[in-house]
Amino acid sequence: MTTNQQILLKSRPTGIPTESDFELRDIELPELKQGQFLIKNEYLPLDAGFRQWMNEGSGDNYLPAMPLGEAVQSIVLGRVVDSRHADYPTGTVVMGRTAWELYSIADGSDLMMKIDADPDISLHEYVCALGPAGMTAYFGLLDVGKPKPGDTVLISAAAGGIGAFVGQIARIKGCRVVGISGSDEKCRWLETDLGFDATVNYKLTLNLAGALSDALPNGANIVFDNVGGTMLDEMLLQLAEGARVVLCGAVSQYDREEHQGIRHLWQLVTKRAKAEGFMFSDYVDRFPAAMKEIGSWVKTGQLKSPATITQGLESTPRAFADMLSGRSRGKALVKVA
Amino acid sequence: MTTNQQILLKSRPTGIPTESDFELRDIELPELKQGQFLIKNEYLPLDAGFRQWMNEGSGDNYLPAMPLGEAVQSIVLGRVVDSRHADYPTGTVVMGRTAWELYSIADGSDLMMKIDADPDISLHEYVCALGPAGMTAYFGLLDVGKPKPGDTVLISAAAGGIGAFVGQIARIKGCRVVGISGSDEKCRWLETDLGFDATVNYKLTLNLAGALSDALPNGANIVFDNVGGTMLDEMLLQLAEGARVVLCGAVSQYDREEHQGIRHLWQLVTKRAKAEGFMFSDYVDRFPAAMKEIGSWVKTGQLKSPATITQGLESTPRAFADMLSGRSRGKALVKVA
Repeated sequence: MTTNQQILLKSRPTGIPTESDFELRDIELPELKQGQFLIKNEYLPLDAGFRQWMNEGSGDNYLPAMPLGEAVQSIVLGRVVDSRHADYPTGTVVMGRTAWELYSIADGSDLMMKIDADPDISLHEYVCALGPAGMTAYFGLLDVGKPKPGDTVLISAAAGGIGAFVGQIARIKGCRVVGISGSDEKCRWLETDLGFDATVNYKLTLNLAGALSDALPNGANIVFDNVGGTMLDEMLLQLAEGARVVLCGAVSQYDREEHQGIRHLWQLVTKRAKAEGFMFSDYVDRFPAAMKEIGSWVKTGQLKSPATITQGLESTPRAFADMLSGRSRGKALVKVA
Repeated sequence: MTTNQQILLKSRPTGIPTESDFELRDIELPELKQGQFLIKNEYLPLDAGFRQWMNEGSGDNYLPAMPLGEAVQSIVLGRVVDSRHADYPTGTVVMGRTAWELYSIADGSDLMMKIDADPDISLHEYVCALGPAGMTAYFGLLDVGKPKPGDTVLISAAAGGIGAFVGQIARIKGCRVVGISGSDEKCRWLETDLGFDATVNYKLTLNLAGALSDALPNGANIVFDNVGGTMLDEMLLQLAEGARVVLCGAVSQYDREEHQGIRHLWQLVTKRAKAEGFMFSDYVDRFPAAMKEIGSWVKTGQLKSPATITQGLESTPRAFADMLSGRSRGKALVKVA
């Protein structure tokens, strides 16, 4: 018998979760049933979106609230180490939605996909550039934002796991890229390492509207929003004619019972603009082609895949809180074991 | 010399304008300069959108605030009665943006267009079904909303000048149409006279969300919003997957210094939906084709063109306030003389 370790949701967090909202537990793994397989998890990508499903009533109607006393739901990347499922033999690399745990038992549902890992690409990239973060940036920017060369793209949480990819892909597509971030150090990093054309540190300026206007003399043709709330409102004041607002995330809102009101939606009328939501998981049929293109950018070095990697399952709650507080850079990951 | 009558904006209204915000003035018409022509106005279509430009700072950045002490800006329909402009000879029927006045002097700018009036269509239709209201409904529904047969279309201010056309055009295109209005009498009229499939009287129900859900068992594929504010928020909770929200007007917001916050924008993400603004005047190249199609519907009786017509320039302020208060049905017009 193998012992599993899981991190349970003990209480519903208020604001940014603290370690006391979670609990580490050892349990014995049950035997596999026919049609199941056992995954030894290697990486947990930490996604801000999961914060909202820790709330009672969950704040949206996309996924139900995570149950208290059960392991925290998460995307995982791992290897099949035991199997009673013909399609997932031992040794298969898989990504799917299970939980914060050393081992997961799966049956092929819950977004489970087999990864045909390229030996020239390091494994963790399959939950970074080639995983949900990279795919979200790719489909959100290209399919919803529809960039044209010369467009200006404005990105909130630009140094986050998704924003950093959006900016780089926009540069590859010939756009001018302006990123909003919360520290001078992250702003410098975006400009120096990731090739952003301009950045705004929203925590440093008392006049965010003025700082954005200065960075966007012709307005933004595309706004890629990961933050929501007042940040989205500020960005709506920067739209160029015919702008596309890609609604990707609302990290500022996930710990609220109700989202803040957006006061400048009328800008969509005066600027003949549109705002559109999407989910990367709707593009599953196009994952292989997208992974091929993103993979080629990664291998040639055109796309850097920055990550903040924390070691050990037990560090997951702290790493998750750090990510939500803006203390990580690029994609936040836990290396499970 | 001819005497003109104008209605001036005397003070910036608070909420719904009252007659004391306006003043009737007689002035002598100056002589026409080269390149000008004189229009004897026949109809003033009353548009809720003009309310916002009566505010200081105007509440948007589409048009500047109307100056105090000058004639209230308006679309007008009239006939050229004197001309020093070769393209606009005496007798030409024109529509343009001038003011609440008996006569207007124009030079061909300000959205001025010549109307090649069809003798089988009554003249006032050129500021109703074939005018800005009809064009707004036509391009907003067809180009932004992109209806497919079988779609459900939800319309706010459905008995208003634009909403009544949107519903009928949606029916022509094979959609199921649900209208929101503010009285049982208007709701009955929408269903009986204009062929709406269902209606909701928002003033009668204490549970608008429940009433809308009942009327929209499969959600709304298209939301056509003329109201904004909390009405838009309620409608966002009714979106079907992939819905299109046509942002046309925000009559509930034009008398506010700042628009109310929209709290349910996140529905665009969970429903993979989009919200898009537009201006009918962007489609000017397609007006002739649109007028031909709308005209054919009017002549065959497929499209009814309901209007509340008030007599006399001096009645304009009251008619405008009635329209904003929801006391008119269909397009509100003033027959000038």
